Amino acid sequence: MRRVAIVGIGCSRFGELWDAGFRDIVLEAGIEALQDADLEGKEIEALYVGNMSGGKYIGQEHIASLIADYSGLAEFAIPATRVEAADASGGLALRQAYMAVASGLHDIVIAAGAEKVTDVGDPMDILSSAADQEWENFVGANLPAIFAIIARLHMKEFGTTEEDLALVSVKNHRNAVNNPKAQYRREIRVDDVLNSPYVAEPLKLLDCASVSDGAAAVILAEESIAKKITDTPVYIEACTQASDYLAIQNRKDILRMRSVVKAAEDAYRFARVEVSEINVVEVHDSFTIAEIMAYEDLGFAEKGEGARLIREGVTELDGDLPVNPSGGLKACGHAVGATGVRQAYEITLQLRGEAGKRQVEAEKGLALNIGGSGATAVVTIFGR
Amino acid sequence: MRRVAIVGIGCSRFGELWDAGFRDIVLEAGIEALQDADLEGKEIEALYVGNMSGGKYIGQEHIASLIADYSGLAEFAIPATRVEAADASGGLALRQAYMAVASGLHDIVIAAGAEKVTDVGDPMDILSSAADQEWENFVGANLPAIFAIIARLHMKEFGTTEEDLALVSVKNHRNAVNNPKAQYRREIRVDDVLNSPYVAEPLKLLDCASVSDGAAAVILAEESIAKKITDTPVYIEACTQASDYLAIQNRKDILRMRSVVKAAEDAYRFARVEVSEINVVEVHDSFTIAEIMAYEDLGFAEKGEGARLIREGVTELDGDLPVNPSGGLKACGHAVGATGVRQAYEITLQLRGEAGKRQVEAEKGLALNIGGSGATAVVTIFGR
Repeated sequence: MRRVAIVGIGCSRFGELWDAGFRDIVLEAGIEALQDADLEGKEIEALYVGNMSGGKYIGQEHIASLIADYSGLAEFAIPATRVEAADASGGLALRQAYMAVASGLHDIVIAAGAEKVTDVGDPMDILSSAADQEWENFVGANLPAIFAIIARLHMKEFGTTEEDLALVSVKNHRNAVNNPKAQYRREIRVDDVLNSPYVAEPLKLLDCASVSDGAAAVILAEESIAKKITDTPVYIEACTQASDYLAIQNRKDILRMRSVVKAAEDAYRFARVEVSEINVVEVHDSFTIAEIMAYEDLGFAEKGEGARLIREGVTELDGDLPVNPSGGLKACGHAVGATGVRQAYEITLQLRGEAGKRQVEAEKGLALNIGGSGATAVVTIFGR
Repeated sequence: MRRVAIVGIGCSRFGELWDAGFRDIVLEAGIEALQDADLEGKEIEALYVGNMSGGKYIGQEHIASLIADYSGLAEFAIPATRVEAADASGGLALRQAYMAVASGLHDIVIAAGAEKVTDVGDPMDILSSAADQEWENFVGANLPAIFAIIARLHMKEFGTTEEDLALVSVKNHRNAVNNPKAQYRREIRVDDVLNSPYVAEPLKLLDCASVSDGAAAVILAEESIAKKITDTPVYIEACTQASDYLAIQNRKDILRMRSVVKAAEDAYRFARVEVSEINVVEVHDSFTIAEIMAYEDLGFAEKGEGARLIREGVTELDGDLPVNPSGGLKACGHAVGATGVRQAYEITLQLRGEAGKRQVEAEKGLALNIGGSGATAVVTIFGR
């Protein structure tokens, strides 16, 4: 396998983008990535797109082809492939692009993630088609309900509290203030979270990420080519994917996302990196409990002790292990299929030293992107 | 790149399967493939699934995860990836699986394709989301209309006739009689086609493939492992993908699918195979005109002379170059995301000598799977 580096990154605004369509936001991100790398479209050899539900959100399938058409990349007849694993679709796009370059099939590839959700009636219902429809969503167990079950059990087993969950949201909102792409650039207090209405007990409105419009793109290149393109290549040292049962009723342990544990183990081994070497992290805080679970399943805390990290400030921007400097899904916004690529955008900024007021000291970064309630996980380790 | 062989194949019935759900037909195909290879689920290292529109057809995304769950493959935490490019989704799944093995990442991988379409109101409207919704389908240019435009121009430029188109349908129906998996196992006559009602002039009902339920699966393995698994490995000698503009208004020449031409050129070169060496072919006859275009764009006939092949019987089962021995999309049935994998199933049967009454003499086979009106094309060359 060849070494692969990120040589260009782009990200649209995240939010309720009433003034832009799906095509517009993809182009916004893609053009920014090309300009960042100082490359032309004709140098791109393949396109991978992460998108969860073009069919239901915008009435369009054949999504990668749409993007190849609208961006002009179709002019070069390159393979254009959409991948989907609910809100881990972006992570899958990154991984397929990584494999295409690592294997020697291609030298320069673009991975994009995009979702336009605000044009339809019920984005959460569509997002919940990430869960097992027949056994979960159709009978009321949509994603907030599933994560509420997980949170309730975590509280019972390990003493995690609603205040702990609130602290995650408060931290991520604070970080987002300094992220110009973020949807919610305002601080909130623990009381704001605790006093917000319940969505599914014990999860309240401010425990839940929004479903947002947004797109992100990263350009990957083989190491020697990457060094010619940029002085600040960010290497992908591992990009692994694993799965668990889709319906949580089928899982052996709903307090341990086996997909995350397996993908993380594989990633650390492949990258030959110790957990302790990771300096900056983006995790998939679709719900605050998911961030605490991620601390544990990624190996940053023992199982059941995740809440300690947020209580003690370890994962704050100025802590030992900053998590979600971007604001995470909660405050940057969760543009579903875009999120996995948006995480790579953030870690790249951080490792380049271009993250502005939210910059942390980091040599190695990690991103965790999950699909639905964790049936799919993609873990990526980045290094300078 | 390592050599990759098909070591197991499975295919569900194609048709209106009112007695089976999406999960059932995928399992039907997958179990048949595992039994054919005499492998257990735990030996599979990754799953790729081609599916066009789970979201709209069955209200379910996260499709590969669903299959991993329901099949039990989730037990082994393997990566489960859905790929989508409209009705070329199956071809993409085959190609991603092929690349995963060829690159050395995995040794044994399963590629499945599946679609359940009869549970909803308007399968053709959903299928037409393969076209550019904003510029084509929303204003009435659904897939039959687009192929009607192509057919009309082909007739004007090259003298192709409605009788020529009908001959394609007649041939494919005749072939399907001997395919136990096929949806329409009955012969039709040219007059039947010509007297069937217009769907979009000059295309009539019997020029159009149905939209069907169905699933197919193939198991791929690295050469040395393949030889241990089976005495009749069928090698994938190339599997290439290319694109064209999604909206036909943007194409330089709507009578030449540039995606097909490019993918075919790449495939012949990569496999080091001459066009003349191909003995058996499955093409994407979603509409009869598409089969005639395929003859041309794959290099079996000069541009404009495709109809000659069907008039002269070249592509009949007993002709020099049998095309669609399975019955093709028209008569075997077009289960959208399944079709690309179903084509690989057919070519494998043919090269193994297991195709029963529809068996042809063949050393090398080729399959062409396209998405929508041809914005995506996947060409696969198979050899014994």
